[in-house]
Amino acid sequence: MSKAKAGIINVTGYAGVELARLLYQHPEVELTSVTGRSAAGQKLGAVFPHLNRLGLTIEAALGEVDIAFSAMPHKESAGVILPLVKKSIRVVDISADFRLNDAGDYPRWYDFDHPAPELLGKVAYGLPELYREKIAKAQLVANPGCYPTGAILALAPAIKAGIIEADVIIDSKSGVSGTGRSLSLTTHYSEVNEDATAYALGGHRHLPEITQELKLLGLKEPSVTFVPHLIPMTRGILTTVYAPLAAGKIAGGEKGKTELRKLYLDFYQNEPFTEVTESPPHTKHTWGNNFCLVYPTIDERTGRLIVISAIDNLVKGAAGQAIQNMNLMLGLPETTGLESPAIYP
Amino acid sequence: MSKAKAGIINVTGYAGVELARLLYQHPEVELTSVTGRSAAGQKLGAVFPHLNRLGLTIEAALGEVDIAFSAMPHKESAGVILPLVKKSIRVVDISADFRLNDAGDYPRWYDFDHPAPELLGKVAYGLPELYREKIAKAQLVANPGCYPTGAILALAPAIKAGIIEADVIIDSKSGVSGTGRSLSLTTHYSEVNEDATAYALGGHRHLPEITQELKLLGLKEPSVTFVPHLIPMTRGILTTVYAPLAAGKIAGGEKGKTELRKLYLDFYQNEPFTEVTESPPHTKHTWGNNFCLVYPTIDERTGRLIVISAIDNLVKGAAGQAIQNMNLMLGLPETTGLESPAIYP
Amino acid sequence: MSKAKAGIINVTGYAGVELARLLYQHPEVELTSVTGRSAAGQKLGAVFPHLNRLGLTIEAALGEVDIAFSAMPHKESAGVILPLVKKSIRVVDISADFRLNDAGDYPRWYDFDHPAPELLGKVAYGLPELYREKIAKAQLVANPGCYPTGAILALAPAIKAGIIEADVIIDSKSGVSGTGRSLSLTTHYSEVNEDATAYALGGHRHLPEITQELKLLGLKEPSVTFVPHLIPMTRGILTTVYAPLAAGKIAGGEKGKTELRKLYLDFYQNEPFTEVTESPPHTKHTWGNNFCLVYPTIDERTGRLIVISAIDNLVKGAAGQAIQNMNLMLGLPETTGLESPAIYP
Amino acid sequence: MSKAKAGIINVTGYAGVELARLLYQHPEVELTSVTGRSAAGQKLGAVFPHLNRLGLTIEAALGEVDIAFSAMPHKESAGVILPLVKKSIRVVDISADFRLNDAGDYPRWYDFDHPAPELLGKVAYGLPELYREKIAKAQLVANPGCYPTGAILALAPAIKAGIIEADVIIDSKSGVSGTGRSLSLTTHYSEVNEDATAYALGGHRHLPEITQELKLLGLKEPSVTFVPHLIPMTRGILTTVYAPLAAGKIAGGEKGKTELRKLYLDFYQNEPFTEVTESPPHTKHTWGNNFCLVYPTIDERTGRLIVISAIDNLVKGAAGQAIQNMNLMLGLPETTGLESPAIYP
Repeated sequence: MSKAKAGIINVTGYAGVELARLLYQHPEVELTSVTGRSAAGQKLGAVFPHLNRLGLTIEAALGEVDIAFSAMPHKESAGVILPLVKKSIRVVDISADFRLNDAGDYPRWYDFDHPAPELLGKVAYGLPELYREKIAKAQLVANPGCYPTGAILALAPAIKAGIIEADVIIDSKSGVSGTGRSLSLTTHYSEVNEDATAYALGGHRHLPEITQELKLLGLKEPSVTFVPHLIPMTRGILTTVYAPLAAGKIAGGEKGKTELRKLYLDFYQNEPFTEVTESPPHTKHTWGNNFCLVYPTIDERTGRLIVISAIDNLVKGAAGQAIQNMNLMLGLPETTGLESPAIYP
Repeated sequence: MSKAKAGIINVTGYAGVELARLLYQHPEVELTSVTGRSAAGQKLGAVFPHLNRLGLTIEAALGEVDIAFSAMPHKESAGVILPLVKKSIRVVDISADFRLNDAGDYPRWYDFDHPAPELLGKVAYGLPELYREKIAKAQLVANPGCYPTGAILALAPAIKAGIIEADVIIDSKSGVSGTGRSLSLTTHYSEVNEDATAYALGGHRHLPEITQELKLLGLKEPSVTFVPHLIPMTRGILTTVYAPLAAGKIAGGEKGKTELRKLYLDFYQNEPFTEVTESPPHTKHTWGNNFCLVYPTIDERTGRLIVISAIDNLVKGAAGQAIQNMNLMLGLPETTGLESPAIYP
Repeated sequence: MSKAKAGIINVTGYAGVELARLLYQHPEVELTSVTGRSAAGQKLGAVFPHLNRLGLTIEAALGEVDIAFSAMPHKESAGVILPLVKKSIRVVDISADFRLNDAGDYPRWYDFDHPAPELLGKVAYGLPELYREKIAKAQLVANPGCYPTGAILALAPAIKAGIIEADVIIDSKSGVSGTGRSLSLTTHYSEVNEDATAYALGGHRHLPEITQELKLLGLKEPSVTFVPHLIPMTRGILTTVYAPLAAGKIAGGEKGKTELRKLYLDFYQNEPFTEVTESPPHTKHTWGNNFCLVYPTIDERTGRLIVISAIDNLVKGAAGQAIQNMNLMLGLPETTGLESPAIYP
Repeated sequence: MSKAKAGIINVTGYAGVELARLLYQHPEVELTSVTGRSAAGQKLGAVFPHLNRLGLTIEAALGEVDIAFSAMPHKESAGVILPLVKKSIRVVDISADFRLNDAGDYPRWYDFDHPAPELLGKVAYGLPELYREKIAKAQLVANPGCYPTGAILALAPAIKAGIIEADVIIDSKSGVSGTGRSLSLTTHYSEVNEDATAYALGGHRHLPEITQELKLLGLKEPSVTFVPHLIPMTRGILTTVYAPLAAGKIAGGEKGKTELRKLYLDFYQNEPFTEVTESPPHTKHTWGNNFCLVYPTIDERTGRLIVISAIDNLVKGAAGQAIQNMNLMLGLPETTGLESPAIYP
């Protein structure tokens, strides 16, 4: 059987090159076309030496493919995707352009009017742990943001079980690659090394995405505070989530912790990539692979749920999850091409 | 006038060498004696080349000094301090041995019975922003822990003003030097680099210290969750604090933020080392100096107070604050020897 | 066809866990047994969470395997290998115990008398670029050291072509994982971060290995200076080699550079893992994979050859090369299980 | 006595802000004026929070000062300095515009014709270890480049003593701040972290500066190869220098090493900032201070001199040395304002 052909629109950002790396290792899909803007005409291996063996040239426009990934910036992504959708090409969108169900959220959070609000209802939100079946059938999948992936997977079992109240605090620590390959003082080595800081305190764009999904999971009138932080490492997001336990839902003390753990283990028991750990997870244990590690516990003194999750922001937080979605869309085993262990140390 | 003589007990840890560095620069105090255990007999400059110019030899026992710093581990520190106290030598204790006012807390949190509970009432907790006058008169000062310093300074103005409720969440991100110079996989470069993790979820030893001080500031029945994280940098603690605003105490929206900011500016207006910043602080801006940078804001969507603080864990979080305390105790200007700007980049 | 069974002796160091990671991805060989000393009895995934999916338990003694890797420290490795050799089990030795052909070198450089000097003539030095056929037939392969791999591959084409004189200087910069997982101040994060230093100036143990191979390549009476440096990163060795060009062997100016480049391209034209780059290589472009990137040039002002090579010390410098050797020994395509691109960024 | 007034032209690069930091601590000189281009009109503390306490505003043009530092890029620096020289203001130039004595070198290495070749003979090269008296009298001092500082100080004693031949290889490893604060992929955190690379193999601009000084020290017809490398740290340059020992000048074996060490100790015995170490130096031991640590040894197997030097590229390699020069020019004790130990860890 011939392999399916895949293409990447805007391969030159970190999500794009990570997609190319993962597709190169994929046994059932072949990466046949990659596009870029400023780099069009150059060999992919000239810009990214580690991808030299793919033998591809960066094109100005996408060739014929069975499935396309858009790694364009938000607002521009919708523009390149809509023509593909019309041609019935299946698409995984790494940008935010189809993640929010409510068209009214786009002008408020992303400064543009959505060009195809009628599609928003039909798009699948590409978090397989929650939407596996819808993804499999979707023509267009909105790949989740990196922060939402870690936050939602940390909270989903607790919300589904109804054990927490709506006052949720999400404190995330991200490596620098999450801010992309563009140049700014924020990513200058000498500025970022030996530095930690919080940002977007006025409201990060991933907040409405998180809130939307927590609501859909059943959290009523969620009151979510989300503070992202930048820390000096290249890859990884560690997310610490805090929420009050609902009264009378779960036992106190060690018994409650055991119940909680069982609840999380049950929820994720068949998941190939989300794993409940026995101790607080390290982002290093996800370095370069598609795992989300989740550790739930209870702060007994205060009756709060604490959940820690760890992902590689470029894999489970972007390109790896996009491949996972592609596998589902193509009817392949979900883990195809994603089995590599994390790189340690 | 001759300089006061200072000594450091157990100079060989990171707090100890940082004390030596800062005392070397101090114009009014001379470091005349340093002790160590395994390293006794060696020249200080042989073990720590950057301190070569001090010309000191590590001794087994402290020489005659006017003021002593103990950088011994907890439990052992009390043992070396008590004889000094009897001899009326003034002491700053970097360890935790005199930080908790309630003798009953020591067996629970530190696994030992306090050898001198009668002293606990007389000791000054060495946070000059709160206890300046008591410190000046004290014979024994308990230098605060690194995490408590950042957390308490982030919360003090809000608690004093009565604008928050008791449900406090403290999420701290610390550089690796905070875990000391001892060897363990937790500080092995290849394990820590490119890694972030949470630890001590069952209750970190700095929690009772934080809670004690928040109570003393006026927070009634505080319900404090404290989660420390280790991130890949050498120095620095970034602390993000969350607490619900008390109803009717502060305005909503931008007006509230302005009120909040004024409240913090007023509280810290005469402080030489604690500064209210106009944007979220960077730990890098405290690298090597004694500043605590504090940024308060309101999450308008949820009505929560968020405060970010940044310190250098070895300076304001340990040795620098100890010098600040010493200055107060000796009647010197509080900033003597501590004026160096942060090292940037 | 059933898969060959492989075992790792002393899996608990960085070379050992990297072997396990790479074998997990290998389509033709199954890792069936791993041993450790202090960790015997524990699940592999308990000690190394990223290897959880292998489902192995660390044993005290090796099970039945077709091929064994020894990741024991030098001197001890020979002791565990000799019984295997007697049982005709094929072995790749990651240690130095069989790398040197002259038994007299072991007491001088490694402080022990070789227990089986008669084997030294029969062992294959596991650098496939030079000894491919011998490796394929060998029962025991001595996997090269990390520094020698980068240094020898940088020099081999020039020596074979007779274009350099014997005065060779090798200046290597290594990431910290090269010093292993043992605890020492040398690998303490706070000591190593933001630090660079040279070490082993009296003579590093990899020097006789390098000299032996340069001689075998045809360099007469080599006069080799080798200085290793430790720099603050986890993986990677960058090696810069300097040697005077022999008179009259290669043209001057740009023409000489072109000739030199062609010479290197020809030498490595069929190599799957050694690649001649068009600009000075980055260790990052080998991160996690088995490549050795080589860049030769001429310093026209002085008539010196300069060659830069980059490898991942744990892959081409240890575990990856061991798999490459195993592939050759088992008659498998040499690249099997080693095709993953480097992880970037 | 009133303090001398100092000004910094182009304070917004890393050398400029480091000058400001050091001048802030200087007891005899006051920083009264700083200029910038894009940032003119902004408060210095708004752009660089750690310099907030200086209370300065970035100006478009320099105010009246007794001594000026130019941290302008090369070519532009001469343009701003010449008018100051005419007004008899003393100047330390951090740029390369007056470092090379031969006007013909500027077009070749820096792409511009020197606007004031007549000054080149009168300028002092600002390496106090070699030109202390000339600097004290000079109106214009050319502050050495960062690489030349480490390389020249490593070689000066050996050349003066005539113990080496002219074949010199200089292999330097620099932290990222050496490439400045401008934005480029070369300084992007995700590209630089976990990476090492060599650059400028065709000839770095610091090469003619190094060669000029080695010649002036007495090295005849020097044949110098200089290869700079970029490694993942913010500050620090480690330089490893190799040169053949001249026949019959120094004993072999341990005796030679002792002679060599004595020779270096004697040469630098009165130097306040250049120190001969007993073991290979760490850049960390110079972090934030003005030291140059030098370790000479002999590779006995090959009869080569090896010298390792370590500096902080922004202090002894730029701003600190500029202050040292200023002290000499103003007749102050050379170490004034520069006594702080390195920051460790």
